[in-house]
Amino acid sequence: MERKRAREFGIEIGSLEPGRLNAITDVKGVGVGHVTLIQGESIRTGVTAITPHSGNIYEKKVIAAVEAFNAFGKSTGLLQVMHMGVIETPILLTDTLNTWRVADAVLDYFKERYHFTPKTLNPIVGETNGGFLNDSFGRHVKKEHVFEAIDKARGTEGREIVEEGNVGGGTPMIGYGLKGGIGTASRMYENITVGVLVQLNCGKREDLIINGVPVGKELNVPRPQRGEGGSIMIIVATDLALTSRQLWKLSRRSIIGLARTGSYSSVTSGDFVIAFTTGEKKIEDFKESIKKEGFDGNELFLNPLYKAVAEATEEAIINALFKAETMMGVNNNIVYELPYDQVEEIFKKYGRSID
Amino acid sequence: MERKRAREFGIEIGSLEPGRLNAITDVKGVGVGHVTLIQGESIRTGVTAITPHSGNIYEKKVIAAVEAFNAFGKSTGLLQVMHMGVIETPILLTDTLNTWRVADAVLDYFKERYHFTPKTLNPIVGETNGGFLNDSFGRHVKKEHVFEAIDKARGTEGREIVEEGNVGGGTPMIGYGLKGGIGTASRMYENITVGVLVQLNCGKREDLIINGVPVGKELNVPRPQRGEGGSIMIIVATDLALTSRQLWKLSRRSIIGLARTGSYSSVTSGDFVIAFTTGEKKIEDFKESIKKEGFDGNELFLNPLYKAVAEATEEAIINALFKAETMMGVNNNIVYELPYDQVEEIFKKYGRSID
Amino acid sequence: MERKRAREFGIEIGSLEPGRLNAITDVKGVGVGHVTLIQGESIRTGVTAITPHSGNIYEKKVIAAVEAFNAFGKSTGLLQVMHMGVIETPILLTDTLNTWRVADAVLDYFKERYHFTPKTLNPIVGETNGGFLNDSFGRHVKKEHVFEAIDKARGTEGREIVEEGNVGGGTPMIGYGLKGGIGTASRMYENITVGVLVQLNCGKREDLIINGVPVGKELNVPRPQRGEGGSIMIIVATDLALTSRQLWKLSRRSIIGLARTGSYSSVTSGDFVIAFTTGEKKIEDFKESIKKEGFDGNELFLNPLYKAVAEATEEAIINALFKAETMMGVNNNIVYELPYDQVEEIFKKYGRSID
Amino acid sequence: MERKRAREFGIEIGSLEPGRLNAITDVKGVGVGHVTLIQGESIRTGVTAITPHSGNIYEKKVIAAVEAFNAFGKSTGLLQVMHMGVIETPILLTDTLNTWRVADAVLDYFKERYHFTPKTLNPIVGETNGGFLNDSFGRHVKKEHVFEAIDKARGTEGREIVEEGNVGGGTPMIGYGLKGGIGTASRMYENITVGVLVQLNCGKREDLIINGVPVGKELNVPRPQRGEGGSIMIIVATDLALTSRQLWKLSRRSIIGLARTGSYSSVTSGDFVIAFTTGEKKIEDFKESIKKEGFDGNELFLNPLYKAVAEATEEAIINALFKAETMMGVNNNIVYELPYDQVEEIFKKYGRSID
Repeated sequence: MERKRAREFGIEIGSLEPGRLNAITDVKGVGVGHVTLIQGESIRTGVTAITPHSGNIYEKKVIAAVEAFNAFGKSTGLLQVMHMGVIETPILLTDTLNTWRVADAVLDYFKERYHFTPKTLNPIVGETNGGFLNDSFGRHVKKEHVFEAIDKARGTEGREIVEEGNVGGGTPMIGYGLKGGIGTASRMYENITVGVLVQLNCGKREDLIINGVPVGKELNVPRPQRGEGGSIMIIVATDLALTSRQLWKLSRRSIIGLARTGSYSSVTSGDFVIAFTTGEKKIEDFKESIKKEGFDGNELFLNPLYKAVAEATEEAIINALFKAETMMGVNNNIVYELPYDQVEEIFKKYGRSID
Repeated sequence: MERKRAREFGIEIGSLEPGRLNAITDVKGVGVGHVTLIQGESIRTGVTAITPHSGNIYEKKVIAAVEAFNAFGKSTGLLQVMHMGVIETPILLTDTLNTWRVADAVLDYFKERYHFTPKTLNPIVGETNGGFLNDSFGRHVKKEHVFEAIDKARGTEGREIVEEGNVGGGTPMIGYGLKGGIGTASRMYENITVGVLVQLNCGKREDLIINGVPVGKELNVPRPQRGEGGSIMIIVATDLALTSRQLWKLSRRSIIGLARTGSYSSVTSGDFVIAFTTGEKKIEDFKESIKKEGFDGNELFLNPLYKAVAEATEEAIINALFKAETMMGVNNNIVYELPYDQVEEIFKKYGRSID
Repeated sequence: MERKRAREFGIEIGSLEPGRLNAITDVKGVGVGHVTLIQGESIRTGVTAITPHSGNIYEKKVIAAVEAFNAFGKSTGLLQVMHMGVIETPILLTDTLNTWRVADAVLDYFKERYHFTPKTLNPIVGETNGGFLNDSFGRHVKKEHVFEAIDKARGTEGREIVEEGNVGGGTPMIGYGLKGGIGTASRMYENITVGVLVQLNCGKREDLIINGVPVGKELNVPRPQRGEGGSIMIIVATDLALTSRQLWKLSRRSIIGLARTGSYSSVTSGDFVIAFTTGEKKIEDFKESIKKEGFDGNELFLNPLYKAVAEATEEAIINALFKAETMMGVNNNIVYELPYDQVEEIFKKYGRSID
Repeated sequence: MERKRAREFGIEIGSLEPGRLNAITDVKGVGVGHVTLIQGESIRTGVTAITPHSGNIYEKKVIAAVEAFNAFGKSTGLLQVMHMGVIETPILLTDTLNTWRVADAVLDYFKERYHFTPKTLNPIVGETNGGFLNDSFGRHVKKEHVFEAIDKARGTEGREIVEEGNVGGGTPMIGYGLKGGIGTASRMYENITVGVLVQLNCGKREDLIINGVPVGKELNVPRPQRGEGGSIMIIVATDLALTSRQLWKLSRRSIIGLARTGSYSSVTSGDFVIAFTTGEKKIEDFKESIKKEGFDGNELFLNPLYKAVAEATEEAIINALFKAETMMGVNNNIVYELPYDQVEEIFKKYGRSID
């Protein structure tokens, strides 16, 4: 049976409307490219590239911000984003121990694709730990995979439907003791789009909540012996031209969406949000819809976007679970997918109709 | 009909056990004192004191930390706590515009009660905005009220059942378009107690979630014309001797509990968490129950406390709604209480039995 | 003998040119008003208002940022500035224990001057501890003094020469074991002005450095028994329209100027920088003078402003020492002024000519 | 003529005594290992390892903290240190574009030396940009160089005299338009040692200050066409057992030392301080020398350490300049060493005797 997204399954999270694709690629210009490596018994890894636009990002940087909710994580480049307020490379997501080789490959990408030898460059690489299913120490993601992922993201392929589940950097990941990986979603507000993509590798089984229903407690699926309690990478894109400070505050609301899926952001989690804007339209350009009321009329306009990012994050996480498939990997470790029939059963019990 | 706490109503949030009182006062030494001012048509205010211990806190400071999730707020003293890692006065909660007078009164308290004239002092005063029901600008909380609240907190009265709802600093507050105010709860883990007290004044009606059920969308109660989208003060206490860094990370998990009640932490919210420890027992003293597994064996022990603080925060918020009563205030403004019958109805609809 | 500013004395700090007044009031629109209270033997206090413009700042907020280098300090309102990126009231400076009453008085100011009753307001009050010369606990700064200081700042008087030394909030302060207080300075770069005002109350005698000369070690002046090692408030203004993030980074460079006068930012110091911009001209408007070279052509333009703020801070601190006069206060405590003749002697010894 | 350290040259910075070696290795357990790569015309690079102790640091982590004063830098692992408060690998310093390969090699080091395959690891790699003299893009630092540097640091060699100047990660670096690189120094206070090591690559020529003397303005040495205004990595070690919060505050005082050498921490600088403690003696163990006076008797004890770290940082920077030698590198670029005769001349002019 083909895996469906949460919304195809009849689960509608939140109240705002998704964009056309219900994906981060609804934000104009944003591309996503996955390279998935599944070989033999022990290689279950890959890399995902998110490109804010298809051009040379070093030359046309994008305004950005980072929230490090719990920084037990190896992501590269984030402190510079916090201080400079811009991103100057694609964002790459991968398995923990690939992190630095992927970052290094980004240098080569700039040289080979743009015939420009960077003297300095701040590659943004996010990671979660796929070591239960993947031979992480093997560091199987190579330069060519990084190139391919970025090329895909920049090409037309990267602008359309985003594959979810066991793909790209998300290939070996575990979410709430079930098969996790990549998920995405988006929300619209007054022609503004907020898109989110997650690499889900966190949460304990018993804590899983789907749209308010405590599914984790009710599920009857074997749990992996290890790999619960890990990390999540959350990428947020919007086409509203915000400042870095505003994006930072926006990014913090992703944690609200994360919380609603059941995570407690464990001690050993690297729970990071990276937000950027591709837009040129500012809040001021929506003046007619802005009711000045007190403090900072303009900034109040952000409230619906806070909701949008929380909803999109929650749905992206649930999408990762809905799309990921049971996987066996290194040491014959196995992680099971979210079983649709059980979800249906549990939802009924909790008075939620699924259409 | 007397107002009940959520648990008396049959709603059990989370999986950890509450302490004896299910209140912040379950944490050894902690006291809470309310002074409630309801006079005429326009005075609906008060002050709540939380004392980490009953002694002179300046002389016996407590380790502390602060999370400023969204700092549109006037709380005093928090930056010093962030840098010094200690609290040296009781914590006071009140209505926004009383903030500075309450802080000033704390100086007098030290002089009059301890016969010691502080040369420097860092009063911790938290606030939310009760201006829809209260004549805030009148600043009706006086020195004597501050004294009385601290005295109560330090006395035996302050160590027992904590009044909730329309009391103390919470008197005029609004939560999710319903009457809000003070709420409290606690959780136990291996003889460690985590207690939380909130002054709830945030959230939009339609967003209210109670134990996963989207109650806000289903409620049929008149909404206040203003006053949604405000702030919350969250006070966290534990008897486990943590460092300031560890307390900070613990305090961040309160946001997870907050998120699960439906807040998006609006642009104009002052959503602060202040955490302190009264304990002398360290993580190391629980060695037998600590399984060393990787990174930092000791710190892993904090995971259940993260859950405890999230659960206790969620329940404290719901308790505030369950205990608060319909109130009319300044300009004949009125805010309605959470109606039990509707909650019961909605819970049934969502498959949640209420015993 | 009348006290002179450092530059009148022949000491030229740094390489950039000062503005016309060599004061924070060189920044267009900025006003400074002092109210100085010297009464009897024990009252040595006051309040200083800095107004970014002469209008209603709540209605026309200014972009701002805060650096808390060492936050053993009671300043109010700073966390909100960090998150919201704006200031909405005048900035007031005073003696520590006046802090909260001064903040409270700002509310009344808005009501009485603007016939507008604030429902929420974020008063910015900075403080240092004048308790060696002043009866701090008496809290002698009253509402009327706050009003007067703000009125002066907003009036024409506030736009001109800024009094320094034993004035306003700086009245009882101590710097490097010498009489400290208020100091100011400014720097120009390409028609951009950066102005700084300090309330100097920090530093140990032996550590004092004036323009690179270790004056503190060589001075022969009685030291106060207490009061070394305190705090400094640094206010930075510029007419270049920067974002809050950029202002934050600018404000950090004040610490460089502070360091060069000899401070180690002691454990019990409240060393805060508050920066704001009054400008509408952006970096982009100086395009011709911006050489794009690498990272972020625009932002490189900030380098000379970093220098400007460091130089102006250093000179403002030295000005405070040069202008302050010997003062006797409570308990007959006395703090001596910087003796010009000794400075001259020491400068000669260190090969610095003083014209 | 052999290059001398500042103190051998007669320049004594500050008032506290240096340790036996006047180096970071005065802190018990700390080791430093350099591997220097100077080959042909374009390879001028290397790697420096600092080991808090000679054991497996992953198994015996050290308490640590980070100050990111200006985070235009690519260092890896720092965010995790900020949140977790520990370091679990050696610290490596290198040229910018080697950063990620060096981080990756640290994984292999753990596997090959400790026969343990890390599932997760947080390599700490600091960098500054040596691209004016080195073929940075060539990334010439290989796994074996990283291994050798760490082995040296852990061996007896690493515990003794630390080579300075054109060595290890500092090989191609530029300081104040002069040849920079590695420098170190230490200070003692009551049997407590604070040691600092810097990789100096920042500052503009005209801004250089040596012990208060504005040497940069007076020097007559050709300037490099590029490479001014870069970064500095500052490593701080102490044998006093501090908390992560206390170490963070200590680390900030390194910026004071940096400021006194003339830097303005430029827009494109990665000015980071990484501090750790190897000690088991706590502040409390120095009780007799602690005079309780107000706030936090214990913490006041840190004041002399703030001075120690500022002085040691200042001297380490000056040592880097004093020890580095004129170097020619890629594209025949040349950077000149600090000329002793001119320093002597300038010092005389500024009344500083050099013994």
